[in-house]
Parts: sequence; C-alpha cells; structure tokens
Amino acid sequence: MTLPMTVREPGLPARVRIHEVGARDGLQNEKSTVPTEVKAEFVRRLADAGLTTIEATSFVHPKWVPQLADAERVFPLVSDLPVALPVLVPNERGLDRALALGARRIAVFASATESFAKANLNRTVDEALAMFAPVVGRAKAEGAHVRGYLSMCFGDPWEGAVPIPQVTKVCRALLDMGCDELSLGDTIGVATPGHVRALLTELDVPVDKLGVHFHDTYGQALANTYAALQHGVTTVDASAGGLGGCPYAKSATGNLATEDLVWMLRGLGIDTGVDLGRLVATSVWMAGHLGRPSPSRTVRALSHEDDEGHEDLKEQ
Amino acid sequence: MTLPMTVREPGLPARVRIHEVGARDGLQNEKSTVPTEVKAEFVRRLADAGLTTIEATSFVHPKWVPQLADAERVFPLVSDLPVALPVLVPNERGLDRALALGARRIAVFASATESFAKANLNRTVDEALAMFAPVVGRAKAEGAHVRGYLSMCFGDPWEGAVPIPQVTKVCRALLDMGCDELSLGDTIGVATPGHVRALLTELDVPVDKLGVHFHDTYGQALANTYAALQHGVTTVDASAGGLGGCPYAKSATGNLATEDLVWMLRGLGIDTGVDLGRLVATSVWMAGHLGRPSPSRTVRALSHEDDEGHEDLKEQ
Repeated sequence: MTLPMTVREPGLPARVRIHEVGARDGLQNEKSTVPTEVKAEFVRRLADAGLTTIEATSFVHPKWVPQLADAERVFPLVSDLPVALPVLVPNERGLDRALALGARRIAVFASATESFAKANLNRTVDEALAMFAPVVGRAKAEGAHVRGYLSMCFGDPWEGAVPIPQVTKVCRALLDMGCDELSLGDTIGVATPGHVRALLTELDVPVDKLGVHFHDTYGQALANTYAALQHGVTTVDASAGGLGGCPYAKSATGNLATEDLVWMLRGLGIDTGVDLGRLVATSVWMAGHLGRPSPSRTVRALSHEDDEGHEDLKEQ
Repeated sequence: MTLPMTVREPGLPARVRIHEVGARDGLQNEKSTVPTEVKAEFVRRLADAGLTTIEATSFVHPKWVPQLADAERVFPLVSDLPVALPVLVPNERGLDRALALGARRIAVFASATESFAKANLNRTVDEALAMFAPVVGRAKAEGAHVRGYLSMCFGDPWEGAVPIPQVTKVCRALLDMGCDELSLGDTIGVATPGHVRALLTELDVPVDKLGVHFHDTYGQALANTYAALQHGVTTVDASAGGLGGCPYAKSATGNLATEDLVWMLRGLGIDTGVDLGRLVATSVWMAGHLGRPSPSRTVRALSHEDDEGHEDLKEQ
C-alpha cells in the first residue's frame, strides 16, 4: 500500500526545496546537549535521506547557545558532504570562524520587531541590521551564499500582531545588503493561513527570494505552508522530527516537522528528493539520543506501523 | 495580547459550524472508559464553551463499543441542553433506543470501501446501505435530522487510495435515502490537500450538504480543512483536545483537535461561536480524567502559557 495517494493541485510548484534546520534551530532549542559525534552523524543521515540543504550548526557565542558550542568540531565532520551546509553567524567574529572552516553558505538572524531584536540581540532592529551589513558584505565578497532570517514576521510575544510594512522594511534592508534569500519566520507559531497569504501578497519581494519558516506551536505550521505553496513559495524550512521549540513556551512542539511536510508534499505530487522512510528512521534514532519521542505525527505513525508489522513504508 | 491576528481571506465562509465529536468518536476510541457522569459533564462543558452541535453518544451495541455502553444513561443527562445533540445509531434497534430517549438528530455510519464495510459492519457496502435505508426512512418520518458518515473516503488500510467515483456512489445512496447531511471521513488520516480539493471538486454533491472529518494521523488534518474551506465547506468535524484515535494505529493522534481548528478559524476571521479558553480548560479537565495530556498543540500551548503566568487567553 502506497499512501498518501498523489493528487496534484494545479498552480502549485513542481518541486520544493526543504531547508532542513533540525541540526541547528532544532538542537539549539532542545534541553539535552547532544554529543558532537551524534550531531555530525545526524547531519550525515539527513543527507543520506535526500535532504540537500542542511543547516549544520551556529557560530553564535557559546554563552548564548551552549548546545552548539562545538560548531568548530561539528562542521569539519560533515563538510565533505555533497549538500549545501549553511551555518548561522551572528557577527564578523562568527563569520571569520565559519569561513576559516570553509563554510560556503552563511545565515544571519534579524528580527522584524524591536522587542525581539532587544531580547535576542540586545540591539534595535536598525542596530542589528547595521551589525549584519558588514557580515553580509564580506561573505558575499568571499563568494558565499547568504540567507537572512527574519524572526517574528507574524506576531511577537510582546508586541502582538506585526504590521506587514514592518516586515517589508527589514526584508528590503537584508536584500539591499546582499542577502541571496530570506526566511520569513513565525517564531512563536501564531501565523494562520490568511495572514500568510496577506504577508506574501503585500510583501514587495520576489517570491523566489523567499522561504517560510513556521513553528507548530498551535498546530498551524502545515496549513500555513500549504497557503505559502499556493502563493508560489518553493523553499520551506523544516526540522527533522519536529526538533526544537520556542524558548518562550514549554510546549513540546517547535518547528514544522520535516516528515509531516514531506508527507503533504508527496500527497501533492511535489518533488523533494527525500526518502521518507530514511528520514523517519533518522528522527527515531535522534529521539533515542534526546530521550523523548518525536512530536511529529508522521514519525509517530510510521514508526508505530513498523511496530505493528504493517507494511514498511520506509523504502517508498 | 490577542493572537492570532485576524486576517480574513477572500472567498472563505464567514461562519463555520463545528460538529464536535469528542464525546462520541473521541471517547469510543480512547482506552480508558470514562464514568457516565464525566461524559455528561464533558458534553455540558462543551456546550458552555459555545459548541452548538455536540455528538453525544452512540447506540451501537455495547459489545462493539464498550466505552459507550452507557448511552441510555448519558443522553438524558444532557438532553436539556439548548444545542443539537446527534447520536450514532447502527440499525433499527439503535434508532428505537435513541428515539425513545427523545433524540432529534441521528447519524448512520457507512463506508466508502468494501474492506472497511466488511471489517466494521461485517457487510458489503450495498448490504450496509440496505441496512441503513429503513433507519434513515423511519428517522425522517419521525422528523429527525439525519447525518450520514462515510468512512475511508480517501484511503483505506487494505485497499489503498479510494477512487472518487466510489465515494460519489455512496454519497448519492445516502442522500437518496434521505440523509440531510454527509460527513466525508478520512478515517486513517491519509488525505492531503490536493486530494481533498479533487474529491470536493469531482463529487457530484452540493457543498452545503457536506461536512469534512479529518484525522491527524500524519499531521495533515488542518491543512486538509483549510483546503476544504477554500472549496466552500462550512461544516467541520473536530474532537475537543484531539480525543480519540484510529484503532488501526497506535499513534497518539486521532481526530483533528477542535482547539487547533478554532485557532485557525479565529485567525481567518471565521466565526464559530466558540470560547477558546473555556474549550481548552475543558480539554485539560478531560485529559486529567484520561490520565494523559491532550495531543492538541493549541491545548498544550495555551495551558502551558497559563503555567508560566503569561497573559491568560481563556477569556478571549
């Protein structure tokens, strides 16, 4: 039995590129710190499952993200992989560390709101952008590809709903300083599909420069992704097994689970190149290291099917 | 802070009627059997939270659904409520029991596939329809409203993908025998949004006769619901707290959680009449009786927010 049945929808993209963030956004928000070798093995398994863009680690100062303090050791263990391996850098010092290890793709992390810029970066939005401008400029001069994250594009825990012109302004600044692509983040998971549609419609940015990054705090991530696909978005961030979470909520759910995304895309006949069975096996393996089950519905369902001796979907 | 921000989407319905199935479809699939008084209190709390259609219980033989063996005692404890209280009946004997207690809305349970008709009803699809015809006829003659469930409208664990003409045939038979509305069930959770769109487009049935009933086995239920809304569906089945599950999977997830649905509809500016805070409190209360946390993301997020002293969303 091959399920879901594939039923294409006119107007949706033929292919979606998944930007896998489990090893970075996922692990940096997990309570358990994972050993360096396990992190590297995780990235290797993700590549083996067919993911082609795997955010590998973060060169943020270990004081802020102790879970990824071993970035210098993780990156060389995976840098031979034939996939794109972006790494997060917060400033020029982080960029130096990443470039010294041969990183060819970097990502910077801006905020659409003043409150989160203050909380996360201890700067105003403009001060943060001013900090990133030389980072992006130097990365581009070195020939690197640069992604700009925007957090809090929909709602903010302090400011509530975020006006779309505010998001547009930060998008424009990041593109002007040279970012190759942007990732619109719903950091606290409050987006709903009409809001996604409105943002993508009103945002004055070419859709091929945009990725979407939804958190599943209120169970909306996949519906939001579907709305984004209907608007032509072809880059979707997701985290294997739904790893990670927002530090501002105790919820077990964080990022959109890559498996739930792949299941939907498979049903829509949209190519991702991902082997779902291998990906589920990877998330089950990582859940063992973290000591808790994956919050991904698809991981749970497919791994339980194995338990029960149902037909193995791993090799589809 | 009131989140999500409301952003309407042109073309979507102004109002959705939620057909709440937690007390029937939810509880009949839970391992724990809930005391009669708790079931009645659950229904009363759901009504108090603003739900207007609450499936109260099932008059299926207790041998098949022991969790709802107390239907005769539950129904009189809630029948004074000023809401619609459909009950499931499998045959004329069940109908007699329901009508004797004053039930004014009944539901019958057909299958779109031969395999599930055999497994669930020990009949062919046509034999099951022949069994329901006099039930529906008598219920209509008594002035009752009749809902027809169709299970396995998308995929079936034995037959795989279900051809749309097969679903149309059973829909037509149920409408012809007098059903006032139909509920299209994705019993094993394998639907994806393009499949939903295709079924609703090709099905030769007026959309105002149709409800959708999604299970969240693979995390697709809300995205599928959004696709159904875009096709004009205004009746959506959901289960408070995501209660219940498919007996054919050990997954912790069953029906679409009413809270996750209400959150999305609120974001889309679609009226449901539901007080989300009261509903979350009801699901937390029921989770206490069942001894396990709700699988609803929204229930988890909002109940954790309370723990952390965030602004209480219960009175929104």
